[in-house]
Amino acid sequence: MIPSVSGGRGRQMAREMAEQPEVLDGLLRRRAELLERLRTLVPTPLAGIAITARGSSDNAAVYGRYLLEASARRPAGLVAPSLHTLYEAGVDFSGYLAIAVSQSGATPEITEVLQRLGDGGAATVAITNEEASPLGEVADAVIGLGAGEERAVPATKTFTSSLLAFAIVAESLGTVPWSEADLGRLPAAAAYALTDEAPATEAVEALRRARGLATVGRGYLYAIALEGALKVKETALVMVEGYSAADLLHGPIAAVGEKDAVIAFRASGPSAEEMRRLTLSLQDRGVQVIVVGQGEEAALTVASSLPEQLAAIPASVRAQQLAHGLSLAMGFDPDKPEGLSKVTLT
Amino acid sequence: MIPSVSGGRGRQMAREMAEQPEVLDGLLRRRAELLERLRTLVPTPLAGIAITARGSSDNAAVYGRYLLEASARRPAGLVAPSLHTLYEAGVDFSGYLAIAVSQSGATPEITEVLQRLGDGGAATVAITNEEASPLGEVADAVIGLGAGEERAVPATKTFTSSLLAFAIVAESLGTVPWSEADLGRLPAAAAYALTDEAPATEAVEALRRARGLATVGRGYLYAIALEGALKVKETALVMVEGYSAADLLHGPIAAVGEKDAVIAFRASGPSAEEMRRLTLSLQDRGVQVIVVGQGEEAALTVASSLPEQLAAIPASVRAQQLAHGLSLAMGFDPDKPEGLSKVTLT
Repeated sequence: MIPSVSGGRGRQMAREMAEQPEVLDGLLRRRAELLERLRTLVPTPLAGIAITARGSSDNAAVYGRYLLEASARRPAGLVAPSLHTLYEAGVDFSGYLAIAVSQSGATPEITEVLQRLGDGGAATVAITNEEASPLGEVADAVIGLGAGEERAVPATKTFTSSLLAFAIVAESLGTVPWSEADLGRLPAAAAYALTDEAPATEAVEALRRARGLATVGRGYLYAIALEGALKVKETALVMVEGYSAADLLHGPIAAVGEKDAVIAFRASGPSAEEMRRLTLSLQDRGVQVIVVGQGEEAALTVASSLPEQLAAIPASVRAQQLAHGLSLAMGFDPDKPEGLSKVTLT
Repeated sequence: MIPSVSGGRGRQMAREMAEQPEVLDGLLRRRAELLERLRTLVPTPLAGIAITARGSSDNAAVYGRYLLEASARRPAGLVAPSLHTLYEAGVDFSGYLAIAVSQSGATPEITEVLQRLGDGGAATVAITNEEASPLGEVADAVIGLGAGEERAVPATKTFTSSLLAFAIVAESLGTVPWSEADLGRLPAAAAYALTDEAPATEAVEALRRARGLATVGRGYLYAIALEGALKVKETALVMVEGYSAADLLHGPIAAVGEKDAVIAFRASGPSAEEMRRLTLSLQDRGVQVIVVGQGEEAALTVASSLPEQLAAIPASVRAQQLAHGLSLAMGFDPDKPEGLSKVTLT
């Protein structure tokens, strides 16, 4: 996906995508120390887990809520920020672990929400690329992503490292379905996806001819479908919605037809059968389906030896490849999409 | 919106929309008895609130999570169903109030989730139009919507009565920002919106000429923006995404341009200023914005005397009018959109 014929467009995003194996490796090296800090912080008994974020970080938060609820065996959920910033609901968060995710640590809304949750009694954790940021200041503990400066507007290396940060938080809360060896394979799995560019180039040709686009996933890859949709919206400036397979089947599939294309994120595991049925159902409707993930159906593959919880990380790299390629193919600059800034002030 | 020139298309949906004042009134008459039952059920102390639903009911659940968290002053959130049905995470829900919403009470996934949450220790409530359904059977308490049979595929009267059911649950949990007199005005507010058809007819003309559509809301009307998007997808078979104002501003606004139209749901209250800025920002980009709700900017108005939490109910009627009208204008039958069934088996 290096844009040799595009006058430098997208070069920054491609460079930052390429740094992901190294960033993941760097975070893994700090895992033991982070686990130690986190374990001192988690309330006992734990009433629940609340996560807050916007944009790409919000998609990382969706991934985190699945991971943390499964390991803590206590309910996790996403905060409704306006309840705290606009309506000042004065909610009691005692017994809760609250986690905020912000690449810059400088989004005032996210900092305000974490502060209010802490004031309400929650133990607070910030996942951010800027430890010395306003968000880092208000948190009881900070997981620094250590991703280095991210200059392209679409978040890439900070997104995948946020997923890994959530995996580390999950380990601090209980039992997880992966081994240390699995974690150790993540940088190479990301590197493999980065070097295997041809399937993305081919898929982009199909995507650019589509009338409408959607993405879909289930379970741990649902969040990656949301992130894939956001990345395409941001870089290729087309409207595309991310769905859970169950929600798409529940109604909106009626609006998807033969001129449309769907990017389906698929992992081996309990969700595979449902994704297979959905893919067939879409293909019956004449929809072009591009499968990303594990299994023989995948056009853009992800290391099949990883448990699906971790396969989400290289699957995110695949989503980045598609967005980057589609943006270039449509004549945009994925580094600086029109109308976007890195920090929001809402 | 009565489709006199459409060969009966959409007549069933229009009839069911017209029944909403009566259905709301019927539910209000059972309010005291429901409050009494609910108050015996809520765990003390309350650890949190978990809500589960799909489709339109899921949008009612988004509304409910805001309302219940604000009144209980304890965190509320939406369940990730796959954690319980596919991954069998064995989560401990002790101290939780769990609420499932299903019009038919016959969606197996929702029944299974509520059952598992109850097995995990939650006190369980079903909001359903079919009290003697599988969902009703597994719940500790049932709020029957009493909406009568709903034959058109798009949920209308069961959606607005689900919102009112959540308002009653909110009253059982703590302090609410509305009076009994406000509740008493709801049927008339819905009736007013139903008879005031001209603004919807005019808006439909603009919507059908748009290249892409989106809906947007904030705070208590965010859920109505999601429902508006779903109704349009279901009935007019076009892809349209619902956004919170904050999320739209955080990035996806880049994908909205001058051939697009946005339906903006606006209430008086703390979110009004942000919605006003968003509307101006969209208009600056040349986007056609149709404002639904309270305030002078609204083209499709909602009773300004209602607190915004309750204004969501007549605002939902407005969303139905737009979806019904757009479906007819595009030559579809809103009663039986292609490819949709009333009960899903996912």
